[in-house]
Amino acid sequence: MKVLITTIPFGIKDSKPLQILKEAGAEYTINPLNKKLNENDLLELISDYDIVLAGTEPYTEKVLDNAPNLKLISRLGIGLDGVNLHATKERGIKVSYTPDAPAPSIAELTLGHIITLLRSVHTSNIQMHNGEWNRYLGKTISESKIGFIGVGRIGTRVIEMLQAFGKPKILANDIVPNQDLNNKYEIDWTSKESIFQEADVISLHVPLTAETKNMINYEQLMTMKRDAALINTSRGGIINEDDLYNVMSSGHLNGVAIDVFKDEPYVGKLTELDNCLLTPHMGSMSEACRIKMELEAAEEAVRFIKGMPLQGEVPDFEYEIQLS
Amino acid sequence: MKVLITTIPFGIKDSKPLQILKEAGAEYTINPLNKKLNENDLLELISDYDIVLAGTEPYTEKVLDNAPNLKLISRLGIGLDGVNLHATKERGIKVSYTPDAPAPSIAELTLGHIITLLRSVHTSNIQMHNGEWNRYLGKTISESKIGFIGVGRIGTRVIEMLQAFGKPKILANDIVPNQDLNNKYEIDWTSKESIFQEADVISLHVPLTAETKNMINYEQLMTMKRDAALINTSRGGIINEDDLYNVMSSGHLNGVAIDVFKDEPYVGKLTELDNCLLTPHMGSMSEACRIKMELEAAEEAVRFIKGMPLQGEVPDFEYEIQLS
Repeated sequence: MKVLITTIPFGIKDSKPLQILKEAGAEYTINPLNKKLNENDLLELISDYDIVLAGTEPYTEKVLDNAPNLKLISRLGIGLDGVNLHATKERGIKVSYTPDAPAPSIAELTLGHIITLLRSVHTSNIQMHNGEWNRYLGKTISESKIGFIGVGRIGTRVIEMLQAFGKPKILANDIVPNQDLNNKYEIDWTSKESIFQEADVISLHVPLTAETKNMINYEQLMTMKRDAALINTSRGGIINEDDLYNVMSSGHLNGVAIDVFKDEPYVGKLTELDNCLLTPHMGSMSEACRIKMELEAAEEAVRFIKGMPLQGEVPDFEYEIQLS
Repeated sequence: MKVLITTIPFGIKDSKPLQILKEAGAEYTINPLNKKLNENDLLELISDYDIVLAGTEPYTEKVLDNAPNLKLISRLGIGLDGVNLHATKERGIKVSYTPDAPAPSIAELTLGHIITLLRSVHTSNIQMHNGEWNRYLGKTISESKIGFIGVGRIGTRVIEMLQAFGKPKILANDIVPNQDLNNKYEIDWTSKESIFQEADVISLHVPLTAETKNMINYEQLMTMKRDAALINTSRGGIINEDDLYNVMSSGHLNGVAIDVFKDEPYVGKLTELDNCLLTPHMGSMSEACRIKMELEAAEEAVRFIKGMPLQGEVPDFEYEIQLS
């Protein structure tokens, strides 16, 4: 079977994922364009392949119609907003993912961003590089209210890590409050609106779905405290980037950390603002996390090739919340 | 009595430190130059004052000779490298400090820097601001060896916080290993040289003394791993800044975070390097920490004014390790 590996880097720190594909008789190709693929790139590349080890590139109806041999999309990571699940279902293409692997790495990056934003580290760093010495008076975690929109695999981990920093006040919002967390820590489950209004730091840990698309736009941003901080390490498209630029240009919000963008690679006006901490979708970019994701996704492909039962198939609820 | 408050900001977030000075009958002046004072500034300002609430500015023999009324230097924070303790002793000037107050704030900043450096957040942020999308493959804390030079009030706190991030391998060096920490965590007490050679992140938590001045220069930097990271939130002068620039320009070291400089405000070549995270001596710049330091230093001044016993006098060992 022919396997296209679109997500890069792949197999650099550990060649085992590539080895097991080879041992299973697969003929694999690693993304020849060495960049995140867009719809046109995929259209050109995908036609011959049976299996894709996929990143966040778009599997639209048009792409799938050009992939007559495609039988399995094995996604590294968790977000499924790039895969049109209704279209794959219609065409009998299976979709698997590795939702647990990236969580530790994304959670840790988020924790670092919380400290960076509370202390204006990113802003003062850019200013020091411009020859300016501006000392910002910030807050420690224990002095702050930290709000979470989404408390799943990643939000839960960040809340657990925060316990090592004194007892911050945690505000949280999710469809179903996590009872297990409630028994261990003091958490104030409240509405998204209350979190926007009260939190010193607001961190997003939700998938991109019909419900969350454009969830934070001008109106929500302006209800946040003037010196609040906002973090998005989940998915682009949840925060309206134009509104964020306009609001921050007016001096509202102390800082933001944005790792994910509506269109990637990101080219946009947020790069003009010193108090925007911008990173190129690096949440899962730690060695252990990448190796785990690559191996799990490759193992799923091998199971498929050998006719064994799949272990990472996307559950029904992911189809239900899919972005329309 | 006349009190000069050199350290700024002062009394902004909480006016209590100023109130208690006033209630004790003190006549106070807050730094009229609104910047860190150098020797000349101090010479011009200090002559009339009985007490100084001091920052890190230099109390040299020349300054003290121009301060005939000076009876107490009450330092906010911990470092005493700015105060010539032998000269104050000779002149019968008492010196107090607040060594515990800044620890939580400095430790938390350090923890944030560890994550930032391990993931190249600061480098990719500057590159994103320049329109470049470079994804760095980093490491999480649990995949890393974190080395500590100095395990006192601050190093200890960082080690404790790190336990929330899986079980990182901790290397540590201090004059006397902390037995209490040993009972709780797995710590590899070893030589400075071994830490330089083995650690993925090296964090300095020592005072500036004759022993530590210029402790890390070209030779030590080159024994560190090519992709190592180095953090200094303790004192300027411990790392040779010219050597650091030369070593990093050659591509050695993945990143550094420097909060303290030989001369502050810092003006130098490290600002040319994207992978140098530079902050303007902000370790203690959190609201709770500043308020605590200001209050403790003011209370010490009030005790002196009222003829009560001092509580924060600098102990003998600080005189012994003083930078010559």
